[in-house]
Amino acid sequence: MKNLNGHRIAILATDGFEQSELQVPLKQLKDAGAEVHVVSLEAGEIKGWDEDDWGDSVAVDKTLDQANSGEYDALVLPGGQINPDLLRVEEKAIKFIQAFDQEAKPIAAICHAPWLLIEAGLADGRMLTSYPSIRTDLTNAGAEVVDTAVVTDRNLITSRNPGDLDAFCDAIAEAVTKTPAQAA
Amino acid sequence: MKNLNGHRIAILATDGFEQSELQVPLKQLKDAGAEVHVVSLEAGEIKGWDEDDWGDSVAVDKTLDQANSGEYDALVLPGGQINPDLLRVEEKAIKFIQAFDQEAKPIAAICHAPWLLIEAGLADGRMLTSYPSIRTDLTNAGAEVVDTAVVTDRNLITSRNPGDLDAFCDAIAEAVTKTPAQAA
Repeated sequence: MKNLNGHRIAILATDGFEQSELQVPLKQLKDAGAEVHVVSLEAGEIKGWDEDDWGDSVAVDKTLDQANSGEYDALVLPGGQINPDLLRVEEKAIKFIQAFDQEAKPIAAICHAPWLLIEAGLADGRMLTSYPSIRTDLTNAGAEVVDTAVVTDRNLITSRNPGDLDAFCDAIAEAVTKTPAQAA
Repeated sequence: MKNLNGHRIAILATDGFEQSELQVPLKQLKDAGAEVHVVSLEAGEIKGWDEDDWGDSVAVDKTLDQANSGEYDALVLPGGQINPDLLRVEEKAIKFIQAFDQEAKPIAAICHAPWLLIEAGLADGRMLTSYPSIRTDLTNAGAEVVDTAVVTDRNLITSRNPGDLDAFCDAIAEAVTKTPAQAA
């Protein structure tokens, strides 16, 4: 993976994020040198979902009230059936996602997280992939849906499931290194 | 509630159905005299979701391979974040739902279950309600989304959440009594 020294990346999630889809990008992007913050609705911890039951919790670094998109070079959106469904009704979460798009920064969504791209109004006219169950929703939102491990369409990066995580993280690193590093 | 003697109703669900959204219609419709079958992907039991964790299981009466829409007067689709997401990728489940529509029989979906109406291609041009998180998906699928306890639009009955269950069950009973009873 590319060297990400000096880059800052936000991961937005809440309870029910698919365990590996937060923890693998967190580790891989940190290992590559990036400063990575877990951003959520409230301070404390958020609880993962590990395939078929609740899993491990991770610490929240910043709440949405504290976080400022201007301080980050990219946004990562983990999936899970529960996490994006909870976030899509939270106006602060949607505005945070939209801010990255307005700043033309990479937004990377995996599995069920492209639901959040729909809610943020970012799916129309874009080539995207996702977990199979939400592809009808993406198509209805105006996206061209494909079935590959990772798709990069301008600033949007999407993947299908935990099996795609290596390709997903590589595509994030590739996109971040093309984005000027933000002043901390 | 109207007397449902002689009527047969199917409830289609799998693991992760919102506990009350299966069990309340099951009890109320049985109490009113209907024969009610829980239909699922596989034989055995399916596990409910009780607000924020796994809940109680219920017995499956028929698998989708055994069940025939022609034997029922109406179909009920409970919600939950997990259950409809699992069902919408199952071709047999979608075909079962579509068969009720083709037979002009009532299909009642609550909470997140209207996702299944999207997947079955039944949302376009219809007035529907749902849990707030999936309303963008319903709108994108061509539905007119409203925010009321229960909406009946021809054969489609939809409600928002467990708080609407009494109105939901009453609307199902009302619709079923207008449908000729099926021969068992």
